[in-house]
Formats: sequence, structure tokens, C-alpha cells
Amino acid sequence: MTEVVDRTISGTTTAGSGSAGTTAVDVAALGELLLGRWADVRRQARELAGRPEVHKIEGLTHTEHRKRVFGQLGYLVEHNAVHRAFPVRLGGSDDHGGNIAGFEELVTADPSLQIKAGVQWGLFGSAVLHLGTAEHHDKWLPGIMSLEIPGCFAMTETGHGSDVASIATTASYDDATQEFVIDTPFRAAWKDYIGNAANDGLAAVVFAQLVTRNVNHGVHAFYVPLRDPQSKEFLPGIGGEDDGVKGGLNGIDNGRLHFSNVRVPRTNLLNRYGNVSPDGEYSSPITSPGRRFFTMLGTLVQGRVSLDGAAVAASKVALKTAIQYASERRQFNSSSPVEEEVLLDYQRHQRRLFTRLATTYAAGFAHEQLLEKFDEVFSGTRDTDADRQDLETLAAALKPLSTWHALDTLQECREACGGAGFLIENRFASLRADLDVYATFEGDNTVLLQLVAKRLLADYAKEFSSVDFGVLARFVASQAAGVALHRTGLRQVAQFVADTGSVQKAALALRDEEGQRTLLTDRVQSMVAEVAAALKGANKLPQHQAAALFNQHQDDLIDAARAHAELLQWEAFTEALALVKDPGTRQVLTWLRDLFGLSLIETHLSWYLMNGRLSMQRGRTVGAYINRLLAKIRPHALDLVDAFGYGPEHLRAAIASGAEQQRQDEARDYFQAQRADGSAPVEEKSLPALKR
Amino acid sequence: MTEVVDRTISGTTTAGSGSAGTTAVDVAALGELLLGRWADVRRQARELAGRPEVHKIEGLTHTEHRKRVFGQLGYLVEHNAVHRAFPVRLGGSDDHGGNIAGFEELVTADPSLQIKAGVQWGLFGSAVLHLGTAEHHDKWLPGIMSLEIPGCFAMTETGHGSDVASIATTASYDDATQEFVIDTPFRAAWKDYIGNAANDGLAAVVFAQLVTRNVNHGVHAFYVPLRDPQSKEFLPGIGGEDDGVKGGLNGIDNGRLHFSNVRVPRTNLLNRYGNVSPDGEYSSPITSPGRRFFTMLGTLVQGRVSLDGAAVAASKVALKTAIQYASERRQFNSSSPVEEEVLLDYQRHQRRLFTRLATTYAAGFAHEQLLEKFDEVFSGTRDTDADRQDLETLAAALKPLSTWHALDTLQECREACGGAGFLIENRFASLRADLDVYATFEGDNTVLLQLVAKRLLADYAKEFSSVDFGVLARFVASQAAGVALHRTGLRQVAQFVADTGSVQKAALALRDEEGQRTLLTDRVQSMVAEVAAALKGANKLPQHQAAALFNQHQDDLIDAARAHAELLQWEAFTEALALVKDPGTRQVLTWLRDLFGLSLIETHLSWYLMNGRLSMQRGRTVGAYINRLLAKIRPHALDLVDAFGYGPEHLRAAIASGAEQQRQDEARDYFQAQRADGSAPVEEKSLPALKR
Repeated sequence: MTEVVDRTISGTTTAGSGSAGTTAVDVAALGELLLGRWADVRRQARELAGRPEVHKIEGLTHTEHRKRVFGQLGYLVEHNAVHRAFPVRLGGSDDHGGNIAGFEELVTADPSLQIKAGVQWGLFGSAVLHLGTAEHHDKWLPGIMSLEIPGCFAMTETGHGSDVASIATTASYDDATQEFVIDTPFRAAWKDYIGNAANDGLAAVVFAQLVTRNVNHGVHAFYVPLRDPQSKEFLPGIGGEDDGVKGGLNGIDNGRLHFSNVRVPRTNLLNRYGNVSPDGEYSSPITSPGRRFFTMLGTLVQGRVSLDGAAVAASKVALKTAIQYASERRQFNSSSPVEEEVLLDYQRHQRRLFTRLATTYAAGFAHEQLLEKFDEVFSGTRDTDADRQDLETLAAALKPLSTWHALDTLQECREACGGAGFLIENRFASLRADLDVYATFEGDNTVLLQLVAKRLLADYAKEFSSVDFGVLARFVASQAAGVALHRTGLRQVAQFVADTGSVQKAALALRDEEGQRTLLTDRVQSMVAEVAAALKGANKLPQHQAAALFNQHQDDLIDAARAHAELLQWEAFTEALALVKDPGTRQVLTWLRDLFGLSLIETHLSWYLMNGRLSMQRGRTVGAYINRLLAKIRPHALDLVDAFGYGPEHLRAAIASGAEQQRQDEARDYFQAQRADGSAPVEEKSLPALKR
Repeated sequence: MTEVVDRTISGTTTAGSGSAGTTAVDVAALGELLLGRWADVRRQARELAGRPEVHKIEGLTHTEHRKRVFGQLGYLVEHNAVHRAFPVRLGGSDDHGGNIAGFEELVTADPSLQIKAGVQWGLFGSAVLHLGTAEHHDKWLPGIMSLEIPGCFAMTETGHGSDVASIATTASYDDATQEFVIDTPFRAAWKDYIGNAANDGLAAVVFAQLVTRNVNHGVHAFYVPLRDPQSKEFLPGIGGEDDGVKGGLNGIDNGRLHFSNVRVPRTNLLNRYGNVSPDGEYSSPITSPGRRFFTMLGTLVQGRVSLDGAAVAASKVALKTAIQYASERRQFNSSSPVEEEVLLDYQRHQRRLFTRLATTYAAGFAHEQLLEKFDEVFSGTRDTDADRQDLETLAAALKPLSTWHALDTLQECREACGGAGFLIENRFASLRADLDVYATFEGDNTVLLQLVAKRLLADYAKEFSSVDFGVLARFVASQAAGVALHRTGLRQVAQFVADTGSVQKAALALRDEEGQRTLLTDRVQSMVAEVAAALKGANKLPQHQAAALFNQHQDDLIDAARAHAELLQWEAFTEALALVKDPGTRQVLTWLRDLFGLSLIETHLSWYLMNGRLSMQRGRTVGAYINRLLAKIRPHALDLVDAFGYGPEHLRAAIASGAEQQRQDEARDYFQAQRADGSAPVEEKSLPALKR
């Protein structure tokens, strides 16, 4: 087994002290670093999320669960937990970053509560706030904030989710009555998967194609009352369906809505980015319909930001539970006749959990950067078009990785805890079911990565607009740290192979910060350059040929975007390292950052080898070096998950309670006593062979 | 977009005809091939599984769901669905392979029903059948078969799941009363996760350490009444707990059991492999305690076999639904101003679904081989020790891959269907939740792969017992098809690079059956040889050092086992190809087999590159060749999932019903009519720029 000082056995259970000789993690200081800029808000939110009133009760029917969560929204209002982003003059605090930080922490209480609150204040309320103007704010925000008006964010249709520009609901202006007529022309145009639609929503922000004077000005948002506040019946012309039971998040009443020539006053158009005069003339501060559309959607980026943070939080909860359990649980006595191995000493178990721990740290640091950027833009501190685009690209890059990572981590932790992991009392399965759709809503992960890829291509084209693509590909590749370009001449390959004969030297380069950065950066640049070269001239082709060419490289595009997002995470981790003052903590976090970087390189090792960036010999050192890092991190694993700062009131997992350690102790004491008093039976295998 | 003839649009919706020019799949014949040797049983079982009486109702509480499933067990008995494996003289049909084939098909009705039936007849009943003798059969099997005695298979304990040999429940023989005393010495020894334990079980087969005359003869099975048949109260000395809600399979009442000196007659020992005489003398037909233990456990291999098959069935259901939907669903009009793309024409979508389709075919053919092997052993046709060991190794290799594959496929299909995929009405999330624990029970996947690895090492040692390991590693590596050994001299690398300059030639080799076989086989052999070399001499080290050495290579061991299992799947697929007579079908299945083989090589590409088995140039052709295969398979994708033979009564997914196509048609007709009568509004972007 890995030779480690077991923290609990060595008697130094105080977090952060005494583990593994001289190197130790300062858990308290690390915890503070992880809380980030909005530490106070997070502390408040965690205190609230720890209360039984807001916890998910497992095993409820979806009807009961919906009712409970609706009640909890009221509890959040009473405890001032959800108004931070709203204007000071209406009782909010104009605190955009803090608002998201607080929201994400709700995931530990019940993801349904997080998302239902997100629907009410983060989507419905935000749409009124960001797409509407002062008159709308005064009229509707107070009721939205107080939950007097539970509402829907009615954008997605059965027929269109990812391609919002193609939704088919129409809002046609009738200048005779100065009203918009909201209409659903066919079944595919029903609003679908809409939170609050099945039961609770009294109103909705409905997205529809704005048509006036027979011109379609594209998608705009309209405030539409849905139900009678007393009877809760749909208003005339409005109908709907319940989406029923879902794979998770069953505390939310998702449903469908359709509109048959439903009339709303002209002033119900949320008109910040587009207005219609009483006589039907359209105007907008943004001339280009495309830019206007993306500007409107861009105001709703906070959904992606908060999912990114919530996914990280859920990963932390899962890893704390699984690593705690693995440090107590024993199975198979391979190394001793009387004591079984602690799961966390098995190499495979370390691989399963520590690589994901490293990624969780990286995703957490990257999220903090995203939140800072979000706050700069939404507070107006740095709010240029470029800032907004950067924010959107960053959110589109990070949200897919963190949400997929959360699902992967929850599942791996579930499996790593065996049958116990499958019991709802240990929460992995419950959280995983609830977080499943985080990969889809607020932007399908695969679609988001394509947005990122397009941005990368655009930047690339801008930077090198006057340069030939073939030259570029070579230029980018030659930036790689002393390694040969793919399809290079034989001589170079040979030289490279000769150069890197020493495994020792190879490992040194891989654990070097600059070495990792170079490898990760080079991969992004080269992949983008390669796709750009392949797509060269696409804009001059007929539409269907251009589309076919893009499609042939869709996979490469998505891979390039993912590589970019991984690099962002690695950079965020590395920048955070610079903030760590305590040498022991910095040492352990550096190992963890190296594990993250090396795991990325291992995952994409075939690319590095195929493209001549790593030699065969160096490639073979990656796995072994990762294994050495795992052994180094082992003594600090509990410190690293303790620093997440989640207490029993957030974990609420039977196997994270120390119960396993008690059971192990009881069993060990029993067998020790048996051996001591000679009452243990003799093992048959220690006797002469049985007669048949 | 990929240029394909869309089957529905081209008007030839008849399965198997007319798609993509001359190459066509004979869906009916392929369907028959997939049904395999127990086609009739599968047809019967599918007919039954299609009935509403046995379908899962979503959204029930776990209490209601348990009640429903228990009732369904009775329905299975009434319809003669579950007795095939039992002796003819008791009303069964001694049909072991057919029995499993029938069981696995129940997964499409409700995985809880499959597993609850598996607990009753596959575990509890089988234990009495295979570990008991004629007296036990006569006494208990009729009641077990008729469900008069619902029962438990009480093996796993809270403290020991994977390491069954270390369970702590004791059965001590008292010759004064000729009884066994069943006892739970401490909390960790409670039986846990036991199906039927929380409510329904009237009796249990309890696994316990058999102690007589102060000698522990290891784990044996005892028939123990649990509850009073009338009152359903626990009998004296027995207690338990409900495991509560789980991540899935909530139709099963899993629970915990503990025993305080509970006495059962001596004859309640299921004594086929070990007996105790009235005066307390132990005897066994198997001298070695270790071999006896593994022989007893080996009789219970059918659980693994049936999970393997059920996992394949669930993957088929998911892929049929997702591919059907993807062939109808449209999103983004990248290639035409008036029509959106069908999802299945996107390269990434093809990658996501077709690679998993190929793996599902491979896993299905491998499962059929496993089932044949199982039937040979259990029918006695070929039942040597070697056959039993081969069966166990095969099951241990295939079950992990197919169950993980099912979870991955269900999740990918869920995501590929977006928000609709998350609705329970489309079943992905429901099946995924239920199948989650298939990766854990009947042998944790990671542990099973280690068993496989140990077998591979043992075989290797046997075959080359007199040869030096260093020689061996070279020997094995030199078998690779004309490629250089890793750590080879510079000259060889250079020659190799020069050799394989032609991308065309490289692709040819990869799509060649022998080329794939050589690459896959070589990898297994080399990995085993390498680990064997690393572990050389471990058996001469002190226990803890040997364990540490093994642990340092645990990851390599597991990877080698997985490579072996993948090769088995590839071989099974390839052998099945030989049975296909229709040229069109064989062509398409060959593409699919190539896709499977190439996907494996792509997944492990870094190994092939690092170890000099593929050149950088050839490595770079793998992805492109996979993309070409995807385009070739595209026109046949619906045929390939139709051949699975699951009807609407098995799919029961709203999005597999053709509803999406109807919605698309309705929307298209609407816009066409609008264009035709000139009522479509003008798009703003087609007008001169808006005034501000």
C-alpha cells in the first residue's frame, strides 16, 4: 500500500496540522481563499442552506415536493436571501456578484429550490429588470420580489430550445387597440419545460417574434399575465400542460403554455432594447437585428454563471463525503492478515477521487473569475461590448465543463461508495438526478462549446487577418516548447527522440508550471489554427456547402473549445496558487494543480504524441508521474475537502458522519478481544487437509 | 451536411429497403440474428414485458412502487415466466440459458421487476437449487417458485460487500441440539442492501462463517425463516431496518437484517459443498477451503450474466428512442434558409450515438456468447472446472463493460434529446437511475476487472512458466503487426515513420479486420506481459510489500482487464459477422464493427502511439476514418435500431412515437402556406437599416 501517515491513526485529527511530516495544509486559510470575494454572502447563504426548513425531503411525490419548494421560496423572501441583484430603491442591493454567490449555495439545500428561485428571481425577475425599463420595474418588480407574482420565463418551445432565434410564438402589434397579440401558431411553438408553468405562475415573460407593420423585428420579451390570482385558472386564450415527473428537480412545476391570440397592452413589451410606438413604429438603440438579439440574450447570462457555481458546490459536497468515507472504510486484507486496507490507500481509488478533486479546485477557481467578470459587467465597472462578449464566452466555456464534471464526480463518488452510495440517505444519486439537466438548460453544453469555438475562430481570424493560413499553422506550432511539429521531417523526429531519452528529465518538464502551460496553450492554438485552415474560404461557398464543411469539422471545433476551457481552468488554478502564502498549503495545492494539468495532458495524450509535442518516452512518464502525485496528495486529502467548508448540515450523508469509523472500530475491537481471550475459532485452512 | 438519402423523405419507410442506394440492411433477418439462440423465449418474454400490467408507473412513492412490483411477481408466476431454470420434476424446464434470456427482457418493463424477480428466483431460489440438495429442493423450491415463500439472499453485510470471504455473521454448530446458531456479532455484520428484507421476505438464504468444533470452515449458506407468514413480524432474535429510498429500483424493498443467536436445524445448512454430521463433524467434496468458497460463489454467476444482458437491452431501448428522435428533430438552419437540419445529420450527433450503437451491437453479441457458455456449464454439456472458470472470467469481464456502457448510453441519449430527454415520459432518466447500481451489485465493476486481471496474469504465468519475463515482453511485442517495439532503437522508429508515410495505406490497414485484431490483441498481450514483468517476484515478498507492489500497478491491471474485455466484444462482433448472409446487411454491420474497433483504437490511441504500435501519421487517420464511417452508417441508422425488435410497448417514449415528425410537418406546412399566400411578415434584416 502507499506509505502514508494516516491522519486519524496518527492521532492528529485537527484539520491542517501534523499530517505527513512537515508539509501541511492550513485548512482555515485555504477555506477562506475558496470562499472568494463574496465570502460573507456565501457564509450567510450556507447558514441558511443548512437549515432543515429548506432541505430536500427524499421520497416525496412530485406534487408534495413542488408544494414544499414553493413554500420555501417564501422562506427565502422572509430571510432576505434573494433580493441582492435588485435595485436599492426597490429594496435590493444592486449586488450582482453577491447575488449569484448566494444563489449557488442553495444547491446544497435542494437543487429544486436553487432552480425554482432561479426561475422566479434569476430569470423571470431578471428579464423584467434587464429587458424592461423603469416603468416596468416599478410596476412588477415589487410583486416579483415578494413572490406575490410567481412567474415564468417562457422562452423555450417544444420545437426550439438551442435555436432561440427561430422560436415561432408571435407578438403582432395591433395599432387599432394598441395591443400586442400573442399567438402560438402550431404545436411545436408551445412553450415547454417552463418552470412555474404547470401550477404556480401567475404571469410570464414570454419571448416572441415581434411583428409590427408586417415586419418581423425578431425575438422580444413581453410581460403576459397567465392566471387569475384568485382562482389560479388560466386567463382566456391561455392553456397549458404539466410536463409531469422529470429525471430530477421534481420540486419545480415545469410545464407547457400556449396562447391563442392573447392581447396585452403595448406597454407590456419589455422595451429596453426595442420599442413600438402607439402607431406601430419600431425603434431600437441597436441597429443590427443580430446584435440586438444577442444583447438581449446576453443580459440573461447569469443563469449560466450560477449553474457553473452550483455544479462546483455539488462536486465539493460529493467529494467531501466520498473521501471521508474512503478514509474510514476498509476492504480486503491484502497487506496484513489482521487489518484490512483503507479504501483511500488503493491506487485506483485515489485516481478516481483525487483527479476529480483537482478538477473541482480548478473549476472552483475558474468560477470565481467568472463571477468577478460577471460582477464587473453587471455593476457597470467594466461594461464595454468587449467585456460583455468576454463574459459570455467565458460562461459558455466554463458551464459545460463544470456541469459535466459534477455529473461525472457525483457518479464516480456514488460508485466509489458502493451500495451505500446508491442509498438516497447518502445523497449522491439524488444530487446527480437533480443536476442532470444542468448539462442542458441555460444552453446545451455541446451548443455552448460551439459558440466558444466560433469565438475562438473569429479572434483567430481577426488577429491574423492578413496572413496566409498555412503560414499560421506553422507559426503557431513552432511556438510549442522545443518540440517537433507534426508531419515534420524525419530528421527532427529522430532528434527529438534522442533528446528526450531521460525519463527523469521528461518528468521534470511535465511538473514544471511553464511546461504544462506551454503544452496546454499550444494545443488550443494549434487546434484552432488547424480548424481555421480547414475552414478557410467557407464564407465564400454556397450556404449548404459551407454548412457541410463546418459539419465535417464539428467534432474538431468542439474539441478545440473544450481545450480552451480546460486551459482557462488551469490558468485560474495557477493564478490562485499565487495568492497562497502558507508554504505547506502552496506545496499541496501545487501538487493538486500539477495533477490537474497532468490529467489533462494524459487525457489528450494521443494528441500530444500524434502531433509531435511529446515523445513516446515522455508520454510514458505521464501516468507514472500522476501516480506519484496521488501518493503525495493522499495524506492531505481530508484537509483538501475540509477546506470546502461544508458542515454536516450541508453534507447530510450518513456515511460522512463518522458512522463507518465507529463500525470499523467496533469490529476491530471484537476480533482483538477474541484473539486476546483465545475464543476465536481456528481457520480450516490453517489445519491439515480435510478428510473427504 | 452529410449527403444522405433520408429514409422517410425518400418515401421508403419500409424497414430495410430502399435506403442509400444498393446497400441495404435486411432488418428482419438481422433482428432474428440478434434474438440469438433463445429467440422463442425472448419473443415470449417481450410479449409479456409489453403488457401494461408489468410496466413501471412513474412518480409513485417507493411504498406504492414496492407494492406494485410485489404484485407483478405474482403475475409472472401466473404466466409461467420465471420457472425455466428449475427442475422439470418440480414444474420447471431445466433451461438455464433460456431462463436468463427471459429474465433480462423484463428490464424493459421495469428494472425493479427484473431485479426483484432476480432476487426471488435468481438468487434466493438459485441458492437453494445450487447450494442445497434434493431434500432442500423438495422442501422449499415449490414454495419459492409459487411465491408462497418470498425470500432474501442475505450475503452482503454493511461491512463487507466485495470481500465476501470476510463476512462476519457466524453459524456455530451446537451438537447438543443439532442446530446452527446464527449470530451477528457487531453492527458492521448486519446484512445490508438485501432485496425483500425490508418487507416481503419470509425466509432467507443467509451466508455465514460455519463454525463447528471450534473450526471456522468459511462461508456457507443457511436457510433461515425470517418472518411469521401470517403476522409478517420478524421471528424471535431477528431484526432489521429499511434501507429506504434509493437512487433507483425503488420497487424493491431493500433492507438490513441482524440475528441474535437464532437457531435453525442442522439440516438447514445448504449442504451440497459442505456438510456437518449430527455430532458436528465437517465434511466437503472439495478439500481446499479456497476452492470450495469459489465453487459455491460460482454457482451464483447467473446474476452477472443476466445483468450483462439487461444492460444491453436497456442500451438498445435508449438508442432506438434517441436515434428515432434525432432522425425527426430539426434544429438550426445552417444549410438552407427554409429548412432546419435533422439532428442525425450533425457529425457530433452521429459520433455521440453511432459509436454507442456499435458498442451496443458488440456487447450484445458478446452477451450471446456468454449466455451460451453459461448454458453449457449449467446444463452440464460442458462442465469441467476449466469451463466454470472460463465462464466466471467471461462474466466478470463483460458485466462491467456492458453495465457502464448502459449508463453512459442512457446519459448520452438523455442529453442528445435535450430537455425532452429529461422528462420521465421519455424514460432515459428513469432507466438510468434504475440501472445505476448494476455497476455495483453482483460484483463491483472495478473489483470484477481485477479478478479478470488476476486470471490473465495466472494464464500468462502458466503459459510461460519457464521463460524469463524480459524475453517474454519482447516476444509478445514482436508479434505486433510490423510495428516497432516501444523503447526501440532510433533506427527502427525512423524506418517506421518512413514506412507509413501514406495516409491512404494507413487507413486501409485500420479498416482491415486483421489489422484491428492485431492491434487489439497485441495491446492486451503487451499490457499483461508488462504488468507480469513488473510484478515478477511479488510472491516471494513479505505480504505488505507484495501488496504495495500490486497496488502500484492496480491501475495497469484494471486497464489490461478492460482491454481484454474489449477484445472479447470485438471478437464476438466479428464472429457474428460471419453468420450474416445478406451482403447489404454484412456490409453495414462490417462498417459498424469497424467503427467499434476504430473507436477502441482511438480511445487508447495514446497507448498505441507511445508504444510504437502506430505512427504519428497513422494515428492521425483514425479520427478521420471514424468520421467517414459515421457518414456511411447514417443512412442505415434507423434500420440498425429497428433490428433490435423493440416495439412501442417496450419503448414507451413520447419522442419515439413519431410525434416530433408530426410537429415538424405541421410547422413546415404552416410556413409554406404563409410563403405561398404572401402573409409571412418581412424580416427586418432584409430591409434597409433601422432608423434609431
